[in-house]
Amino acid sequence: MKRDREDASAGKTATQLARIPLPAEGLRLSGGEFLPELVVAYETYGSLSAERDNAVFICPTLTSDAHAAGYHTAPEADPGWWDAMIGPDKGIDTNHYFVVCANILGGCKGTSGPASLDPRTGNPYGAAFPLITMDDIVDVHRLLLRHLGIDRVAAVIGGSLGGMQALNWAIRYPDSVGRCVCIAAAANLSAQALAFDIVGRGAIMSDPNWREGNYYGTGDTPADGLSLARQIGHITYLSPEMMRRKFGRERHGEPDESGARAAFRSNFQIERYLKYQSEKFVDRFDANSYLYITRAMDESDLVERYGSLEAAFAPVQAKMLIVALSADWLFPPEQSRELANALLRAGKRVSYCLLHAPHGHDAFLVDIEHLSDVIRAFLPWVNRPPAPEALPLPRDRQEVFEAITSMVQPGSRVLDLGCGGGDLLTLLARRRNAVGIGVDIDIDNVLRVTDLGHDVFQGDIDAGLAMIPDNAYDCAILSETLQVVRQPRAVLAELLRVAREGIVTFPNFGNWVNRLSLFFRGRMPQGGALPFAWYETPNIHLFTLKDFQDLCRMDGIEILELTCTSDCGLCRFLNAIGLRNAGTSRVVARVARTRTKR
Amino acid sequence: MKRDREDASAGKTATQLARIPLPAEGLRLSGGEFLPELVVAYETYGSLSAERDNAVFICPTLTSDAHAAGYHTAPEADPGWWDAMIGPDKGIDTNHYFVVCANILGGCKGTSGPASLDPRTGNPYGAAFPLITMDDIVDVHRLLLRHLGIDRVAAVIGGSLGGMQALNWAIRYPDSVGRCVCIAAAANLSAQALAFDIVGRGAIMSDPNWREGNYYGTGDTPADGLSLARQIGHITYLSPEMMRRKFGRERHGEPDESGARAAFRSNFQIERYLKYQSEKFVDRFDANSYLYITRAMDESDLVERYGSLEAAFAPVQAKMLIVALSADWLFPPEQSRELANALLRAGKRVSYCLLHAPHGHDAFLVDIEHLSDVIRAFLPWVNRPPAPEALPLPRDRQEVFEAITSMVQPGSRVLDLGCGGGDLLTLLARRRNAVGIGVDIDIDNVLRVTDLGHDVFQGDIDAGLAMIPDNAYDCAILSETLQVVRQPRAVLAELLRVAREGIVTFPNFGNWVNRLSLFFRGRMPQGGALPFAWYETPNIHLFTLKDFQDLCRMDGIEILELTCTSDCGLCRFLNAIGLRNAGTSRVVARVARTRTKR
Repeated sequence: MKRDREDASAGKTATQLARIPLPAEGLRLSGGEFLPELVVAYETYGSLSAERDNAVFICPTLTSDAHAAGYHTAPEADPGWWDAMIGPDKGIDTNHYFVVCANILGGCKGTSGPASLDPRTGNPYGAAFPLITMDDIVDVHRLLLRHLGIDRVAAVIGGSLGGMQALNWAIRYPDSVGRCVCIAAAANLSAQALAFDIVGRGAIMSDPNWREGNYYGTGDTPADGLSLARQIGHITYLSPEMMRRKFGRERHGEPDESGARAAFRSNFQIERYLKYQSEKFVDRFDANSYLYITRAMDESDLVERYGSLEAAFAPVQAKMLIVALSADWLFPPEQSRELANALLRAGKRVSYCLLHAPHGHDAFLVDIEHLSDVIRAFLPWVNRPPAPEALPLPRDRQEVFEAITSMVQPGSRVLDLGCGGGDLLTLLARRRNAVGIGVDIDIDNVLRVTDLGHDVFQGDIDAGLAMIPDNAYDCAILSETLQVVRQPRAVLAELLRVAREGIVTFPNFGNWVNRLSLFFRGRMPQGGALPFAWYETPNIHLFTLKDFQDLCRMDGIEILELTCTSDCGLCRFLNAIGLRNAGTSRVVARVARTRTKR
Repeated sequence: MKRDREDASAGKTATQLARIPLPAEGLRLSGGEFLPELVVAYETYGSLSAERDNAVFICPTLTSDAHAAGYHTAPEADPGWWDAMIGPDKGIDTNHYFVVCANILGGCKGTSGPASLDPRTGNPYGAAFPLITMDDIVDVHRLLLRHLGIDRVAAVIGGSLGGMQALNWAIRYPDSVGRCVCIAAAANLSAQALAFDIVGRGAIMSDPNWREGNYYGTGDTPADGLSLARQIGHITYLSPEMMRRKFGRERHGEPDESGARAAFRSNFQIERYLKYQSEKFVDRFDANSYLYITRAMDESDLVERYGSLEAAFAPVQAKMLIVALSADWLFPPEQSRELANALLRAGKRVSYCLLHAPHGHDAFLVDIEHLSDVIRAFLPWVNRPPAPEALPLPRDRQEVFEAITSMVQPGSRVLDLGCGGGDLLTLLARRRNAVGIGVDIDIDNVLRVTDLGHDVFQGDIDAGLAMIPDNAYDCAILSETLQVVRQPRAVLAELLRVAREGIVTFPNFGNWVNRLSLFFRGRMPQGGALPFAWYETPNIHLFTLKDFQDLCRMDGIEILELTCTSDCGLCRFLNAIGLRNAGTSRVVARVARTRTKR
């Protein structure tokens, strides 16, 4: 199935140029300067629906052109830069969506940039091209879409600089964006990422051929400087581990150069790789574009601009998906996580996932595992197949699920910690009309929950729920999880910080079978609600119903409701005569902070 | 006490020049070329003992000069580059040691290098200076020491490139090195570190003022290129987190430049920092030296040269200390760990520690926590105070320690997993003449064990013992640890892979107190050998003596000897009548692989 998707292609495509009509004075840029003419290079894939509601805009990366999918001459010769993602049956499915991608303002692949002719002089702008910002980049693409008759997009999607654009879209044009996917990006560049850009620009400007930006027509370009900048870039795009795996300290023949220069070139493969990549880049890219666009990227800062990320995200209406890449060190996962946390704090609908991406920052450009799947699951299906009416509950958890469901108030906002595949969230949505978000550490669960239409955060409950504001939910559910976390007491406290009420379920070590087993057999119990052997059990904090009650009393937690499920007839009998600690195999408890007089 | 150490200083020092007598043809370098003259700049601190056995050589870093400690004019004006480490009562204590530091071959601070005058021409060598290797760098320093009348050093110590030199010393001159401390270094540079050097050298060689290395006397130097190289270097010396903390996205006033150049300079503090650092560097350092020395560093590769790291370390006689820095991403901790692992596999005496160093690679140059302490503890004391004869054993573990001691054969090689402060190792050394190495995750324990003269590995037992070869020890001890690891079964298997016999001690959950507590109280037991409440216990895999016996049977492990310690009279009675599972509070078991017929 994966294979089929990869084989599909958006087909033969072509880059088109749109000359966008402007007022007489030109396009006013955010810095106050005017751009007299605006041309935007773009491509489209798939068909726009009659309702014009299926457009997906692909925000370009720093150096990508408009050719994102399909091919110009032959499938192998020149596939689009995100061909792995865009096409029939792919992550962004051109059977359903009308996909638009465009070259970036300030670029050198058809959209107006420093190498374009200045109509006022008839010569290339060079350094006379006005400075641009992220706003200008997004506004130009918005003008393009309106020019194509599209006022609102079903989704904006981008990675890296494209992800920063996608956020800008969702914040500044909330009415125009249905969903927003932001991959391997950040609210702003880290100090380290800034530093790399600063050195890269310094290398270009140190090149005597740069001539203060006015090198067009001189016959020379600042190729050495641009080459150094690109080499630095390529180091940051690959994870150290992937660089080790791809190149290590492998060597090739001798350096191509001679004399002193040869002595200080190595014959490491990594040097050849950097040289090859930078030579290819210097042939296709303009040094001034590199300066203009990296500057816009460096200066873009949602925190500085809006005061805080929560404030920045306040206007957002789109459903958001933030994707972090595990081995990305240019836009490290923590920066994506900060975006997701802030969206959550701002009360927005947001999902977050951290994909295993050993390749590094560039991983989203190749077809990494799960990326297509998660985007496909997140995007609204134009023809989503109707969901089955009744949900087949896992048999051994049915009783517990029923008990939880009966404890949730209709219309509640629900947080399900350790949500698994989303069965409970779906059940609560159906039966209690609850709006839910799940938290789970497993990517397959994240995909399933996303596909079911719920929001989901990929994360480790033990690492804390700091991203969730106080009392953000009516009810937080911790199902069969308290005994597997490292710090059960802290998790319980967090549960009742983020929600008004908590529902906790756990296996009861005080069940008579467990007690008898230890007492008479002298061995750790195994079976029933505790099916694992002592040396491999995930249940690292065993406790009894009484232990739980003791802890609740000690920590000022009130048990509002208690359902004790039983494995067997004797259990039920013991429960019936009031020996609940002995009779219960699984406990479902609804809890809340005790109202204290303080 | 820390404060006192910092206040101490090696005092007023001066760099001296030694003209090393050479054969008529000059110094033969490892590449086959000859250096006609050799001058080495050096400094010394402290006094050489009459026996000439207290010399410590400090291997310099890439850009450091001979001035490592004390000051030339005033303490604040120009302290040595490792003044935090070297001085009276400091980590390298000049009250005890005669410390020598020298400028590096190929450098530009007094030792012969490309900017030195070529006696054959009367002009600076420039690109005619012969290519050098790590061997040449070390050999020149060895010539210096012999010139000073020192044939054998008590220790060689170095960080970064200095650490690579220290390893070279220990491998190539095993008779001449007593101890070797290698900080934040590696067997070779990673692909990523190579890539940064490659781009740095590329920047220098792209500078038109470099003139193929022959720029001396032209009035110009490749300052722009060297500046770019240094900026790249400085990015790699700081951890991303420290860069964020120091600079973040803070801004200063406006850029100093004007026109197009100003537009693409930022006013981020990080840009000013990089500019300041690189300007300072360009003033004091020579671009050709940067090329020669980084090339020697890049080409140095113990694995490539000797076939494997174990083979490289085969001749080592020195006691080794490998220090990794937690936030170093230029020479990441894993590379130091590989060194330590290989030394262990090669059967050498080696200690390893991973210091918390948020600063990054450069952290060893500032006085980070524990670094002085660990080096001080590791170095042999010329006047080590006599150790107390009898060891005060912690009372509650006395019985267990006695049991373990009785199980260890005299003269055994012992591995103590979770060794704590080294009490047991010391006891075994005293009573059983055992040679031991400890493994512990806590740095304070590592310091104590090092100070007691044992080898110690800082590490997490749960992460595996893969660094230890099969059957490397006579006896491996796992004391009160099996129940706290995540994978007890795997740890037990590892124990009996690395040692012929294992000694395992653990609290017995099958003790009658625990059984009764759960049975009658319906609560998790707390007290005695299990003092923690269920929600905060580190004992995440509770098990009974019978459970242990079951697992041993299942996994082909033979229990050779069993000591059952008791908390109380009833325990002792139960043990006496054969109910050991009920009567034992702590178990000490000597185990081995069952000899199977296969």
